[in-house]
Amino acid sequence: MSGPIGVYDSGFGGLSVLRELRSHLPEADFVYLGDSGRAPYGGRDAHTILDLAEQCVQRLFEEGTAVVIVACHTVSSVALRHLQARYGNQARRVLGVTIPAAEAAVRATRGRIGFLGTHGTVASGTFATEVHKLAAVEVIERAAPLLAPIVEEGWETSDVASAAVARYLHLLGDVDTVVLGCTHYPLLRRAFEGALGPDVTLLDPAPYVAARLVDWVQRHPGFVDTGSGTLRALTTGDPARFAELGARFLAAPLPKVECLHLHDGRLVSGRGGATAGQVVR
Amino acid sequence: MSGPIGVYDSGFGGLSVLRELRSHLPEADFVYLGDSGRAPYGGRDAHTILDLAEQCVQRLFEEGTAVVIVACHTVSSVALRHLQARYGNQARRVLGVTIPAAEAAVRATRGRIGFLGTHGTVASGTFATEVHKLAAVEVIERAAPLLAPIVEEGWETSDVASAAVARYLHLLGDVDTVVLGCTHYPLLRRAFEGALGPDVTLLDPAPYVAARLVDWVQRHPGFVDTGSGTLRALTTGDPARFAELGARFLAAPLPKVECLHLHDGRLVSGRGGATAGQVVR
Repeated sequence: MSGPIGVYDSGFGGLSVLRELRSHLPEADFVYLGDSGRAPYGGRDAHTILDLAEQCVQRLFEEGTAVVIVACHTVSSVALRHLQARYGNQARRVLGVTIPAAEAAVRATRGRIGFLGTHGTVASGTFATEVHKLAAVEVIERAAPLLAPIVEEGWETSDVASAAVARYLHLLGDVDTVVLGCTHYPLLRRAFEGALGPDVTLLDPAPYVAARLVDWVQRHPGFVDTGSGTLRALTTGDPARFAELGARFLAAPLPKVECLHLHDGRLVSGRGGATAGQVVR
Repeated sequence: MSGPIGVYDSGFGGLSVLRELRSHLPEADFVYLGDSGRAPYGGRDAHTILDLAEQCVQRLFEEGTAVVIVACHTVSSVALRHLQARYGNQARRVLGVTIPAAEAAVRATRGRIGFLGTHGTVASGTFATEVHKLAAVEVIERAAPLLAPIVEEGWETSDVASAAVARYLHLLGDVDTVVLGCTHYPLLRRAFEGALGPDVTLLDPAPYVAARLVDWVQRHPGFVDTGSGTLRALTTGDPARFAELGARFLAAPLPKVECLHLHDGRLVSGRGGATAGQVVR
């Protein structure tokens, strides 16, 4: 029942997690599904996130995967338990990023962790809940809804990015560790480094998250095929835009991007209708 | 069959159009529906916008309105014809903002119009199509996807806003008129004025749009009740956040905000499920 590894994200950001996974598991085959046609998820209500996540995870299992990694912090924070209860069993698993991120933050902090993420991630309180299972430290969570759009606009090294990062850090106040709680934010590393004092640790949890997932895969040999290092990329959005933006997160060119669209509540192959001009149906 | 006037927007921005409408029609009753729980619409595909718009317009007609004004440029650009074909008849009308905005721009320009809006608005090309029915002038349309989030964050007078506005104006190049093609953008007026040269006209179409709609209402006396100036506000999002942000667009306090949620494809009264923490259903 083993197969390729499925990686699910709301858009492009999870490709930075995939990059780490591939460097540790060069022979594994991967199927990446980015729901970029319906991103961003960060401002959506929880029940909508559950609906979208079900469709995407279901599609990845239909691709023959036995393990799906939810690379998106918003989905991991809001919907992981639901996805595990609905799809997980002896032969199929769904893994998330929140617990590894909490472990990494507890290792790094001297007692006061600042966490930036989407509205949905922060409203869930899941990151703080997981930290407090591990250690009695302070966690200050703040939503930073402009940061992902700035990255998607390609403006991560601009004056817009540095001004927005400075404002969000100001909202966090006096912390010793800043956790980048969205897979888009590592692309703003330079803006963060330029704004943080020398005593503050900037924590991109992605490498640690990937290492923990790799560790899981290696301890569960029945779930992943010995493959040949192939990668397939699926998107609900525009494939040309996905290939262009995605290459920045993967730090490598993407293979041909396959299109998905929604039909009767399921994500099926092929493109939906045209979108330009007035639509009458 | 006459009733209150329905005003539909993806979120808060349409309240600036409502403000103009109320000042011209102080005795009319209004029902405003802001789909803020599912905003922003600007990055969504056309078929999703049609689905959302159908649900909202249907709900406003169920409130006893005989005319619904689509205050949102994205919906007007992408879905107005569909909404008119589906819901419009001798007794019920759906009106939009794109044609009045095009008329205002043609009046203002000396030959080269720049237009900023959402991805969806710009991809539709509807504004340029309507301008070219009126005059042989140039239209340069550019998507400005960061501007609405900046306003929703309350940062419209910040360094983030001025830097983003300057970048988008640079993308428009050499134009004589800049059209604010999204109901959020008038709140960035100071940032635009600070960045534009003295020869460039900054055009907020909202007052002209409102004047045209008022003119329509006065020429069609069977559609609108002589009322008592009441206002009801409905939202699919968080009512406290809606009241707080909405007051900035309306430039006045909002009445008690009523909640809507989606049930079997229809927007019904009352709140949906709780959204904090992990959700399992």
